[in-house]
Amino acid sequence: MSTIKVAQIGLGPLGQKIVQYIAARQGIELVGAVDIDPSIKGLDLGSHCGLDPMQIPICESLAECLETATPDAIILTTVSTMEQVKPQIEEILKSGLPIVSTCEELAYPWDMAKDIAEQLDIAAKKAGVAVLGTGINPGFLMDALPGFLTAVCQTVTNVKVSRVQNAQFRRIPFQKKIGAGLDLDQFESLKASGRLRHVGLTESVQLIAASLGWKLTKTEDIITPVIADKEIKTDAMTIPVGFATGVDQIGRGWVGDEEKITLHFKAAVGEADSFDRVEIKGEPDIISTIAGGVNGDVATCAITINAVKQILRVQPGLKTMLDMPPLSCFE
Amino acid sequence: MSTIKVAQIGLGPLGQKIVQYIAARQGIELVGAVDIDPSIKGLDLGSHCGLDPMQIPICESLAECLETATPDAIILTTVSTMEQVKPQIEEILKSGLPIVSTCEELAYPWDMAKDIAEQLDIAAKKAGVAVLGTGINPGFLMDALPGFLTAVCQTVTNVKVSRVQNAQFRRIPFQKKIGAGLDLDQFESLKASGRLRHVGLTESVQLIAASLGWKLTKTEDIITPVIADKEIKTDAMTIPVGFATGVDQIGRGWVGDEEKITLHFKAAVGEADSFDRVEIKGEPDIISTIAGGVNGDVATCAITINAVKQILRVQPGLKTMLDMPPLSCFE
Repeated sequence: MSTIKVAQIGLGPLGQKIVQYIAARQGIELVGAVDIDPSIKGLDLGSHCGLDPMQIPICESLAECLETATPDAIILTTVSTMEQVKPQIEEILKSGLPIVSTCEELAYPWDMAKDIAEQLDIAAKKAGVAVLGTGINPGFLMDALPGFLTAVCQTVTNVKVSRVQNAQFRRIPFQKKIGAGLDLDQFESLKASGRLRHVGLTESVQLIAASLGWKLTKTEDIITPVIADKEIKTDAMTIPVGFATGVDQIGRGWVGDEEKITLHFKAAVGEADSFDRVEIKGEPDIISTIAGGVNGDVATCAITINAVKQILRVQPGLKTMLDMPPLSCFE
Repeated sequence: MSTIKVAQIGLGPLGQKIVQYIAARQGIELVGAVDIDPSIKGLDLGSHCGLDPMQIPICESLAECLETATPDAIILTTVSTMEQVKPQIEEILKSGLPIVSTCEELAYPWDMAKDIAEQLDIAAKKAGVAVLGTGINPGFLMDALPGFLTAVCQTVTNVKVSRVQNAQFRRIPFQKKIGAGLDLDQFESLKASGRLRHVGLTESVQLIAASLGWKLTKTEDIITPVIADKEIKTDAMTIPVGFATGVDQIGRGWVGDEEKITLHFKAAVGEADSFDRVEIKGEPDIISTIAGGVNGDVATCAITINAVKQILRVQPGLKTMLDMPPLSCFE
């Protein structure tokens, strides 16, 4: 296979990390980069991302980027909502380029943003290319992987997925992001601001339901603090008893009055264990556990890059992980 | 989705079980059945498979079956090798029907039976339908699933998969099939007869390599007895010290002088534990374990049935699990 050429749109922390990851790989290379921040316009992409210079200038628009670069595909890491991502995808599709995006709501937009999804599907087909929303979560651990594990089941009555992470040794910004060290009023304020929420849990519920052919009648997404029952010390903070150590988020999907899908996302300082677990009730029951859990920082970059190979193979249209041949690492 | 209509070709133990499983499901139904055994010709399919009568006569040929039945797809559970399955698939393709088969060598035929694979691919494209070889192993646990788990990896250096089963409480025919209770000469004779071998381990090695883009330079498939180090009693037998308790089979794949893929299949009476485990060395390392292991009898039927839904969606040609959107259970 010849080397895949990509342009990176969005150079926030995730976009920069993807640039670093692509630079370290065989089989895929960067040929362009775009960010709307005027303060980094014209800077060298490599230098800006902490690498050796790449002789690739950061452009302010895709049009400018495509004056010199000829990518096979676009990686888009900019926004989290369908409303925000729609005009960005439409602009890229005008250039006839396939897209892999980490936009969380794009991971399964067919319930909550059906109209926009249909419009993007039509636009992608017209452009003759495919568009995919993916990532580690949503996109894999709490939706596509559990769905794939049901392939060995004659019946499935319930799916439960748990992603539990001990944040004790994670980066301090991550500890702050999950509300560790806040008193419960502060936690509620952060929650009300929307910045505490793991975006995409309902999309994961809906992707699992779609894979099993279940028509959900209700979904739920509830956030509560994990509360310290003893004092906890980290390098960055001391958390008193009764303060938040992190966040507990539950996504649920019902068919009628039966809770069929339960997704449990918990990230807190001082958790006894980190793991990713899928529990399928059916024939047979399946309990599959990734010990230690999957490092989200590495894995989000990896799966986004790995998706680029497959986005070039599939028929045009707006895709989810349910439409894609299985992603894998490649060289 | 409307109910999928299938015809079952091959009514050995596996085919009969698939008939029972389809009969118990929504979303898929049997409309015909074929077996070459003249002694069961004309019998009612349901009655023959231990179910209520289905008013479906067992036919001796597909042509006879298609005089009255109009299936959407064929499930083919007859033979294990590409040489044997080729004329059967060619005959079915003449009727323009897509096929899901449990033929082990069909799970990844592109290395060891490339010529036949190419011929079948051409025939399937001409017929405008897709053909897939799948199953629990080969087809999922030791190949497609490990490949999919690498989706979260930036790099992969080695893949190891272990399928270990305690056969203590399995059916007596299964215990006999794995050589439990034989002395080592008898074990070697059974091995020499070819009946001890788990067919498809090399195909699994090759499917993983293909998913990662690795060009293997050598493969290996080695069978040894598991030997009792103390006397073991089961309902059916007493196994003395020094006799075989079961089989240990290792599949390996090298790139140059580096062993990159190691598949370990072990089924023995008195094994301490049953599990399915994938160990990926890379960035990040992934260790994923299904506690208790997956029951092969149930799962082989289930995944074959679950594949029928997806075989109707994909482009024409000879497919492997690497070409298919993710299978899942469906109603």
